Amino acid sequence: MALMNINFLQLSRSYLFSTIGEKVKALREREKEAPLLNLGVGDIALPLAPTIVESLKDAADDMGETVHGYGSAEGHLFLREKLLEIEYGGLGFSAEEIFISDGIVRDICDIQDLFYHDATVGIIDPTYPAYFETTILAGKKIHLIPCLEENGFIPLPPDQKLDLVYLCSPNNPTGIAMTKAHLKLWIDWAKEHNTILLFDAAYEKFITSKDVPKTIYEIEGAKEVAIEFRSFSKSAGFTGLRLGYTVIPKELFLYSNKERHSITSLWRLRQDIKTNGISYTVQKAGFATLFGAGKKEVEKQVELYANNGKKLKHCIESLGFTCYGGTDSPYIWWKIPTTDSWEYFDFLLNELHIITIPGRGFGLSGEGFMRLSSFITEETLNQTINRFCNHGDKLCVMK
Amino acid sequence: MALMNINFLQLSRSYLFSTIGEKVKALREREKEAPLLNLGVGDIALPLAPTIVESLKDAADDMGETVHGYGSAEGHLFLREKLLEIEYGGLGFSAEEIFISDGIVRDICDIQDLFYHDATVGIIDPTYPAYFETTILAGKKIHLIPCLEENGFIPLPPDQKLDLVYLCSPNNPTGIAMTKAHLKLWIDWAKEHNTILLFDAAYEKFITSKDVPKTIYEIEGAKEVAIEFRSFSKSAGFTGLRLGYTVIPKELFLYSNKERHSITSLWRLRQDIKTNGISYTVQKAGFATLFGAGKKEVEKQVELYANNGKKLKHCIESLGFTCYGGTDSPYIWWKIPTTDSWEYFDFLLNELHIITIPGRGFGLSGEGFMRLSSFITEETLNQTINRFCNHGDKLCVMK
Repeated sequence: MALMNINFLQLSRSYLFSTIGEKVKALREREKEAPLLNLGVGDIALPLAPTIVESLKDAADDMGETVHGYGSAEGHLFLREKLLEIEYGGLGFSAEEIFISDGIVRDICDIQDLFYHDATVGIIDPTYPAYFETTILAGKKIHLIPCLEENGFIPLPPDQKLDLVYLCSPNNPTGIAMTKAHLKLWIDWAKEHNTILLFDAAYEKFITSKDVPKTIYEIEGAKEVAIEFRSFSKSAGFTGLRLGYTVIPKELFLYSNKERHSITSLWRLRQDIKTNGISYTVQKAGFATLFGAGKKEVEKQVELYANNGKKLKHCIESLGFTCYGGTDSPYIWWKIPTTDSWEYFDFLLNELHIITIPGRGFGLSGEGFMRLSSFITEETLNQTINRFCNHGDKLCVMK
Repeated sequence: MALMNINFLQLSRSYLFSTIGEKVKALREREKEAPLLNLGVGDIALPLAPTIVESLKDAADDMGETVHGYGSAEGHLFLREKLLEIEYGGLGFSAEEIFISDGIVRDICDIQDLFYHDATVGIIDPTYPAYFETTILAGKKIHLIPCLEENGFIPLPPDQKLDLVYLCSPNNPTGIAMTKAHLKLWIDWAKEHNTILLFDAAYEKFITSKDVPKTIYEIEGAKEVAIEFRSFSKSAGFTGLRLGYTVIPKELFLYSNKERHSITSLWRLRQDIKTNGISYTVQKAGFATLFGAGKKEVEKQVELYANNGKKLKHCIESLGFTCYGGTDSPYIWWKIPTTDSWEYFDFLLNELHIITIPGRGFGLSGEGFMRLSSFITEETLNQTINRFCNHGDKLCVMK
């Protein structure tokens, strides 16, 4: 009998998004014509921008004329250099410190491969489930860091030593972004405790507040403690194309027997062994989002989503509820009138035909909240607002 | 100090393909204009076929009109169903048993996540390096299974129990394909020992011999012991696009505390957590290779590579050398007149400007051989043959 990775036994029976999928499917079977509005999984609602479509087609033509075979595991240089110029200008990085991937979630999970098997991982509660579940599968130890309403949903460094900590800002699911001062606190703590911060910046394009940094490397000392993960999914509508990247400063090290090993080098070696690069056409499309018409088009999409979020938040607040997020973030964290967010999810799904995500799905501390995504069209926004207004009483019934 | 995954310390200092890359780079620095011929890394030599280019462009247009966001982690149903129809017709699989990925090497490495941390992994020597290196990184135990000239480079099941075994047929690097009888031997052994076979079928499109199965599932009992990995890289020129797939029969189980767990379900759960699907455009391109004009075009490319391989093998044999492979495979396994294949690699690179791969790079038992790739154009083929013929004496000098 071949034996299983027993860490699978520690996973709760069902994965959040799959459970939601099953509930939606069950509704569809009962009510085939239910006019569903999806504010749940944060998937894009707009088609790919025209310049990005053209760049994909140009890249396809290019592959029909010239051989573009295996690229390097860290991604094509044209994209890495452009990213450094546009996204990290003046921060002193070299192309060896940036790695392209086929999506941020891969890197966020796979990075754990570099760490000691018994490492202790700090995870904010509530959290994006992948941090939690991938840590369980790796058999590493989890230390939950509560992120609560009384602290304005800003997580605070714990008293104990941790080997690595996942931080997400602007945060998924709470929609709260950390200011420079908040992040400085974490960086100083990480330096003191020799902790590596895994900084998930998937939503940085939604930042508008002046005191919220767009990259953690704006803050002094960050290069000595932080790995930053970025995504094209929400900033450029790439959820169906798959592209992300990871910045690993050369100042970062892991240790064995008092010898230090560059994390940049370890990651390059791992990627060399386990991957064969990322689609050339998709990298070309990513390149096109970084300047000129492509950049303007994707910025306009982000602006539309952000505005939808603001209007949605305003609507819910006008019904007498408390809401967080929705300012530097595409997510709204809605304080609901019950402590059973799965029950409220079922109510919104079955009565209003609106798909959301119950806060409980993001961890124990998420209970009592719902996450709403502003990745919706204006049409969906208006219909959602209508249904909320028409059912205001029902929404509050459990208050 | 955050501690490192100490398994990294067990890796030999440098990765085969990186070492080759460095040696080529060093030559380029000495001789800028060296007319290099690349018969090394098995990368494609022909541009993408016209119908595949068109399918990529159609998919791009499609994404500009309709939202194609996150697909399911196991890939789009249109591709999975078509693959079952075209590649596995009559074998009784359902779409739940096939998983699309962004390249075969990912799945080949990641599948180990499902197995017990202390599992013993059988690896054929010589071997494709990823099997070996990924097993080291996972900290699992390695049992080498020699694959020697005296057995016609057919690996034989060992006496001891193993948890999983990587088999590659047509084999990389030896170019030898296993017949139904050979594979039946492995399947029966795996059943008896409760071993899971990880069957790498990346090169199945090169099979022409009647007694060599194109999928392991042609053989009775295979569904109870084997996972099959396939690739679009070499069969359709997708090395720069990234697409592969994995078949996991529902008859396969792993065990914990006498409870059995479906490997299909475990893999789905793992992929749900750690990935967000595969590029829509690339899946559409893969679909286009499976029928009509697209299929004919990619088959023609494979035929050209296969013919180049036959001519190359004939040339080397005519110089008095022994060669294996090159029949059901794109690789030629050339018995060289020295027991130092890195030395011979340097000679071929620096004197003939031909890039190959030294057998030693595939393991101890690969020593004394060179791997030549037939993924070359006719022009490269002719130049290679010319150089070999003009340097016949030098090639044999170490005999």
